[in-house]
Amino acid sequence: MGNRIEKDSMGEIEVAEDQYWGAQTERSLHNFDIGRDTFVWGRDMIRALGVLKKAAAQANAELGELPRETADLIVRAADEVIEGRLDDHFPLVVFQTGSGTQSNMNSNEVISNRAIELAGGVLGSKTPVHPNDDVNRGQSSNDTFPTAMHIAVVSELNSRLYDSVARLRDVLAEKAEAFDDVVMVGRTHLQDATPVRLGQVIGGWVAQLDFAVEGIRTADGRARDLAIGGTAVGTGLNANPAFGALAAEKISQETGLEFRQADNLFAALSAHDSLVEVSGALRVLAGALMKIANDVRWYASGPRNGIGEITIPENEPGSSIMPGKVNPTQSEAMTMVVARVFGNDATVGFAGSQGNFQLNVFKPVMSHAVLESIRLISDACVSFTDHCAVGIEPNLERIRENLDSNLMQVTALNPHIGYDNAAKIAKQAHREGTSLRESALANGVSAEDFDAWVVPRDMTGR
Amino acid sequence: MGNRIEKDSMGEIEVAEDQYWGAQTERSLHNFDIGRDTFVWGRDMIRALGVLKKAAAQANAELGELPRETADLIVRAADEVIEGRLDDHFPLVVFQTGSGTQSNMNSNEVISNRAIELAGGVLGSKTPVHPNDDVNRGQSSNDTFPTAMHIAVVSELNSRLYDSVARLRDVLAEKAEAFDDVVMVGRTHLQDATPVRLGQVIGGWVAQLDFAVEGIRTADGRARDLAIGGTAVGTGLNANPAFGALAAEKISQETGLEFRQADNLFAALSAHDSLVEVSGALRVLAGALMKIANDVRWYASGPRNGIGEITIPENEPGSSIMPGKVNPTQSEAMTMVVARVFGNDATVGFAGSQGNFQLNVFKPVMSHAVLESIRLISDACVSFTDHCAVGIEPNLERIRENLDSNLMQVTALNPHIGYDNAAKIAKQAHREGTSLRESALANGVSAEDFDAWVVPRDMTGR
Amino acid sequence: MGNRIEKDSMGEIEVAEDQYWGAQTERSLHNFDIGRDTFVWGRDMIRALGVLKKAAAQANAELGELPRETADLIVRAADEVIEGRLDDHFPLVVFQTGSGTQSNMNSNEVISNRAIELAGGVLGSKTPVHPNDDVNRGQSSNDTFPTAMHIAVVSELNSRLYDSVARLRDVLAEKAEAFDDVVMVGRTHLQDATPVRLGQVIGGWVAQLDFAVEGIRTADGRARDLAIGGTAVGTGLNANPAFGALAAEKISQETGLEFRQADNLFAALSAHDSLVEVSGALRVLAGALMKIANDVRWYASGPRNGIGEITIPENEPGSSIMPGKVNPTQSEAMTMVVARVFGNDATVGFAGSQGNFQLNVFKPVMSHAVLESIRLISDACVSFTDHCAVGIEPNLERIRENLDSNLMQVTALNPHIGYDNAAKIAKQAHREGTSLRESALANGVSAEDFDAWVVPRDMTGR
Amino acid sequence: MGNRIEKDSMGEIEVAEDQYWGAQTERSLHNFDIGRDTFVWGRDMIRALGVLKKAAAQANAELGELPRETADLIVRAADEVIEGRLDDHFPLVVFQTGSGTQSNMNSNEVISNRAIELAGGVLGSKTPVHPNDDVNRGQSSNDTFPTAMHIAVVSELNSRLYDSVARLRDVLAEKAEAFDDVVMVGRTHLQDATPVRLGQVIGGWVAQLDFAVEGIRTADGRARDLAIGGTAVGTGLNANPAFGALAAEKISQETGLEFRQADNLFAALSAHDSLVEVSGALRVLAGALMKIANDVRWYASGPRNGIGEITIPENEPGSSIMPGKVNPTQSEAMTMVVARVFGNDATVGFAGSQGNFQLNVFKPVMSHAVLESIRLISDACVSFTDHCAVGIEPNLERIRENLDSNLMQVTALNPHIGYDNAAKIAKQAHREGTSLRESALANGVSAEDFDAWVVPRDMTGR
Repeated sequence: MGNRIEKDSMGEIEVAEDQYWGAQTERSLHNFDIGRDTFVWGRDMIRALGVLKKAAAQANAELGELPRETADLIVRAADEVIEGRLDDHFPLVVFQTGSGTQSNMNSNEVISNRAIELAGGVLGSKTPVHPNDDVNRGQSSNDTFPTAMHIAVVSELNSRLYDSVARLRDVLAEKAEAFDDVVMVGRTHLQDATPVRLGQVIGGWVAQLDFAVEGIRTADGRARDLAIGGTAVGTGLNANPAFGALAAEKISQETGLEFRQADNLFAALSAHDSLVEVSGALRVLAGALMKIANDVRWYASGPRNGIGEITIPENEPGSSIMPGKVNPTQSEAMTMVVARVFGNDATVGFAGSQGNFQLNVFKPVMSHAVLESIRLISDACVSFTDHCAVGIEPNLERIRENLDSNLMQVTALNPHIGYDNAAKIAKQAHREGTSLRESALANGVSAEDFDAWVVPRDMTGR
Repeated sequence: MGNRIEKDSMGEIEVAEDQYWGAQTERSLHNFDIGRDTFVWGRDMIRALGVLKKAAAQANAELGELPRETADLIVRAADEVIEGRLDDHFPLVVFQTGSGTQSNMNSNEVISNRAIELAGGVLGSKTPVHPNDDVNRGQSSNDTFPTAMHIAVVSELNSRLYDSVARLRDVLAEKAEAFDDVVMVGRTHLQDATPVRLGQVIGGWVAQLDFAVEGIRTADGRARDLAIGGTAVGTGLNANPAFGALAAEKISQETGLEFRQADNLFAALSAHDSLVEVSGALRVLAGALMKIANDVRWYASGPRNGIGEITIPENEPGSSIMPGKVNPTQSEAMTMVVARVFGNDATVGFAGSQGNFQLNVFKPVMSHAVLESIRLISDACVSFTDHCAVGIEPNLERIRENLDSNLMQVTALNPHIGYDNAAKIAKQAHREGTSLRESALANGVSAEDFDAWVVPRDMTGR
Repeated sequence: MGNRIEKDSMGEIEVAEDQYWGAQTERSLHNFDIGRDTFVWGRDMIRALGVLKKAAAQANAELGELPRETADLIVRAADEVIEGRLDDHFPLVVFQTGSGTQSNMNSNEVISNRAIELAGGVLGSKTPVHPNDDVNRGQSSNDTFPTAMHIAVVSELNSRLYDSVARLRDVLAEKAEAFDDVVMVGRTHLQDATPVRLGQVIGGWVAQLDFAVEGIRTADGRARDLAIGGTAVGTGLNANPAFGALAAEKISQETGLEFRQADNLFAALSAHDSLVEVSGALRVLAGALMKIANDVRWYASGPRNGIGEITIPENEPGSSIMPGKVNPTQSEAMTMVVARVFGNDATVGFAGSQGNFQLNVFKPVMSHAVLESIRLISDACVSFTDHCAVGIEPNLERIRENLDSNLMQVTALNPHIGYDNAAKIAKQAHREGTSLRESALANGVSAEDFDAWVVPRDMTGR
Repeated sequence: MGNRIEKDSMGEIEVAEDQYWGAQTERSLHNFDIGRDTFVWGRDMIRALGVLKKAAAQANAELGELPRETADLIVRAADEVIEGRLDDHFPLVVFQTGSGTQSNMNSNEVISNRAIELAGGVLGSKTPVHPNDDVNRGQSSNDTFPTAMHIAVVSELNSRLYDSVARLRDVLAEKAEAFDDVVMVGRTHLQDATPVRLGQVIGGWVAQLDFAVEGIRTADGRARDLAIGGTAVGTGLNANPAFGALAAEKISQETGLEFRQADNLFAALSAHDSLVEVSGALRVLAGALMKIANDVRWYASGPRNGIGEITIPENEPGSSIMPGKVNPTQSEAMTMVVARVFGNDATVGFAGSQGNFQLNVFKPVMSHAVLESIRLISDACVSFTDHCAVGIEPNLERIRENLDSNLMQVTALNPHIGYDNAAKIAKQAHREGTSLRESALANGVSAEDFDAWVVPRDMTGR
């Protein structure tokens, strides 16, 4: 495999013949060998860059800034980027220029060379499609990269996260309905409390997910504002004044998601508060998932010496000799994802605060962390749903045993025999290790009355 | 000063005669001596507990759960709590029971005893107003404390934060308008870039504040859902079914802020995702303030060997001998507040994820941290506005000098003499240390042409 | 109460007659009204400033930089600061100049005026003891404030934290020994596992505390390096070259703790990595306390429907009617402290990374957060020890019941009857809900053999 | 490519013929499809598992627990794992069982099958080398996985991090020496201050690196304690009592790094405080790198309208037309790495606090995050050194200009003409925009005196 010569304002550099990228990408490869194995940009960002470049070409053509045939070539090459056919030509890592310049140039160079190839030209010749003058026309890394960040984040939320969480939410909602009549011991401070229904417990989880997703949707809505049209410092220098808004429109058409040019392009380049907000909203979801996954594993603890009130699917050997030992591995994977998402959120908040003057130069690390959180939460929700939530079942025998031994139902006796007598019964039961019913009967309550008065289901409300 | 005897279910305990609190508060004082000097609850939470207890009494009376005269006594005592006249009777610290039980009981005990006093009764007698049966009627710590948390947070946002931030925002907006014609060097990557106007720079700050406040308002709106009516585990056991919604209505009347009973009371007791969301929204604001305060101090750096393009008020001696050395102390205080708010947010996110079963027992530390962040941001915005922002002025001489020496205006020559010639001029100026104008003239551009073509103001857009 | 006039390089300002502070403190009071109620410096920092100023006066006198009688006056006033008699004269808050300049000046002014008073002079006259020329001689805020930070942190570790943690550690170590023969169910993944002894469990907690404290002691040792002698930028300009080392010696004498002048004073002013390290070490301890407090509350969960294998003291009414419901309130307070300490650590790490050039201007918020963490952990350890740990007792009946029902002892049968037969017995017991012993006997193992072979104590090692 | 049948206690499952892994790995692949593209374990953990399994086989053989020939086969297969020849057979992701069970089993299965192959046996037959009975002999995931975590972390520190940081440190130390005579303006609060030498500035950076590395080495030393020998719950059940210590010895021999069995195996399984400590120590280093990278980019800011006192290598086009615009891209990459490391540290601290009873089930996410931080810091230090630090040069002309215009040298006049006269000169210079020298001369100081008295070099100390 031979090399060809590519050029940029610093001079010539050799690039492998079978690669579409050009001089700036090649330089970056040499200059930033940081976390190479795991921090190369993924599908989400590459696709977003493709969408952006396609939309920009369309907008420029419509505004007369670019010949129609040039634009068409760019669109064809960008479509291949969007479809994922050129992913191997995006070799750069996250830890590069803080404006994402080199990844913006990577997309310019790849699209230019592929367009040249489509036109029958010579790779590296920059003719008939120039990476800067044509593909990057009316743009700067400073506005395109944050635009691509928002496209990627919003797209991932809409194509991946909402469905994954909804899947978990719906399975849990079904469970809540199915187990609405399962009355069990309530627990506060980890201590026995008055009864609840399993349906109510799981319904609380569903409510948490609904709340969190609503928050993410709000943040998503506010992340639709794009920096495009701001060019280098937010003033739009060298872009057609109508370019930003029109490009946003084209991006909306391409993605089927409604984007807009941001009202204030200075803020859009120098701060990424919207991504911090999205990350914060994802953290709310992560916190809810922590509560849910923890509840699941504690309710499933045992089989004999824990709470043991629900059972979950056994997916792998928990113990080679003890069949009932079902390790809550999906809960463990989920809570580890939560720990990671919390860390990503710390990264994003920190990075988001570090802008100076007309630019925040933590763009790549911020978008990468947000996208990683979206991906991990989505994957974990699917995994948790399919391999755990769908199989949650109440252990009715254990639930009944626990409920029978629980003394907190004593409160149901108050209206009938008075607080003092009720307390006396509970204290005696606790002291002697008997059930509340036994103690009540020993204190003069008739069996009929007890069974009529102490109905745990009635203590759980509607 | 003598003591009186107070009683609870654990027995008798002595309380100082001049205190309204009762047995449970007294026990907590002995049991939780943690951070006593700085972690005693403040006005915000005490007031919220008063609001809650007043509303609960009104609702119970309206529902026939409490005699009107008992309710009236509670309302009178609660009004004194609301007004701050009984703050000294709330001695407990944040680090106590994780449900806030002891602070709920503190309010029950103080209101009960003060109501008894108003009725001419004997302190500690629990007659005619019982702390549990009357003041806490239809309530549990598990629903009242989170209700008070939300009342406090929403009230502080509305009575303190919005105004304080708006004050800064408005002063900056005025500055943005006043300095809209001040053309200065743009800076990206900390490197000289094409021009911007100071009004645009400050306008970007204003946009960040607007974005952040809008996010907080959304979170605020979602924090209006109250746990009230859920009692111990979310089922509403022992509360009139209509109590929660009605109490929320009374709370709205008292505060002038619209609250509602939460749809899902199980989630409202076992998770405080809404506070995590508020904290996350405050973090966005903090991040924006970090950017603004940093920009201010860097623009004001010098007086001679920094950027020096703006001046800020000199509030204290920066150097006893050097009058121009104005330390950006307000920026320093602000960014330290930001660091604290980031930490508080980490506390809140962590604590919010740690609920189990029917209760999250990190309620006090969560609400305390959110309230502290609100307070600090508010105070810091007022301080920064009054002692710094109002006095921001452009150093026009320095701005002009910098702009004249800046070479990035070269891009304005491109359309007239071509990219290659323009680059040659810039490179020569850089190499020889001359101005762009000098270099252009030396390369055959006429003075008239240069002055007509290179107009920084025109490079900054609308 | 009248006012007197105080002066600094900005001019005159009125100060209340009964206050020792001067012009710069007064200005700061007006300029920084941020978090006033809870963020005023406490005993730890005020004492440290007193120690520093005393040592500086002694060192200057010894070096001939200050007349002996002036130094003596400063020492007498500083002693009062050290003893806490002048705390009311230190009204400034944390959120001020990021170098702590105003608190350094506060100490200079108070000591100067008090020394003047001791000499029979006129407050505000700066004669015979000048706040800058004498009290601050050879010093700058930039080196004195970080010196005071380190004195305060190291002193608090040594006078407060180590003892408090040791108290918990020792009580737990006693418990570990006392319960060394209590064999109980082990639990991994929250699932029943092979037996452990309660002494081993608690011994694991002790080991965690020992590890954490050792880490803090290492960080403490590295925090003994003081910035003193660096003056404004680290070069030591205007200080006697021998001053820093000698002052550190005097500080060591005063505190009984060995301090040294830092080798590199530039790093000592522009970074506070040592405090970040201390905070990180405190976080390790906090994480260990989280584990311990969580284990305690889970082991004590119940009384009937949880694990219930230990009992803890009942310090306050958990439920007014149910005597066995003992809320683990000390665990709750402890874990809330942990959440706060984690947040403080985030603050410290963030702030520590934000230095520029010759100064880090997040000194006050960093030292405040570290000191708060030390205080909270210390208080919480004492509270947890006295109100919880001392009363931990095994619930032997429950432990035995659980152990008897546990099926994981099956592994003890393997060597005798082979893995396959053992597994068959366990599976049958699990399926039929019987004990392992019952199932073994039903499968042909004799009672004598079973009791000889299955000895949980033997499964727990030495 | 066909499949073969593998078996575990749950039954049979198909595995691709060309893979060495067995049933449990295959199940995990199906059950945990979370972050597949980027969260597959890397070289560091795979190697560590190989080291561990080799050492275990050697120890078991020496103790007579394993036939020598079985052990030899395991050793041969494990050597291939260590060398990286079987990396493709480790397909599992981080987000799996929280004990790392499945990756432990992955190593058992791969080594077993490869050993079987070496012995001429049938893959999947478990003969003559059984994955559990032989490869995992005397071990449990609960002790092996944390052992592998520590091996991996300590190895990466020693083979990667120390050298990478030392490379940066040494280059900076050379620069500090080379530029020790470059006197420049000092800056505190971003404001002009008294002079420092560039060598002193860079020496401060070196001191920070030295401090941080020393802290990491201490944490490293404490991470040498291994969980090996604790088996499932810390009691060592089923392991030869001498196994743990001997295995640790073998691990030391294999790695050339001194490891030991931990004193308390209960803590070693249920907590990973040592990794939290390592992560905290890495955070100190990250914070130092943030300071250094920030100083570099601010000192290099400009070229004309910033500080501009140093120049750094131009590695890529900063602007296509403006040659002097050198974006500080290495600083940007470095500070983004720092933001990531801070986030990883938050993940580790959080996860480390979440153990329960005899196990912490956040092992994979903790070790992954620590390893990622080590890798990123190492890569970034190399990149920053080679592409930035080596090329740092003082811009002597700018440094001199700035120093000449700086007014803070006025303090050198005090001893000669008194404070008041000196202040007058400085104020006039500031007001009139002249140099200090000009102002001094205008106020009666002779040129000879001025030049003799105001010698910036003398103000910078030794």
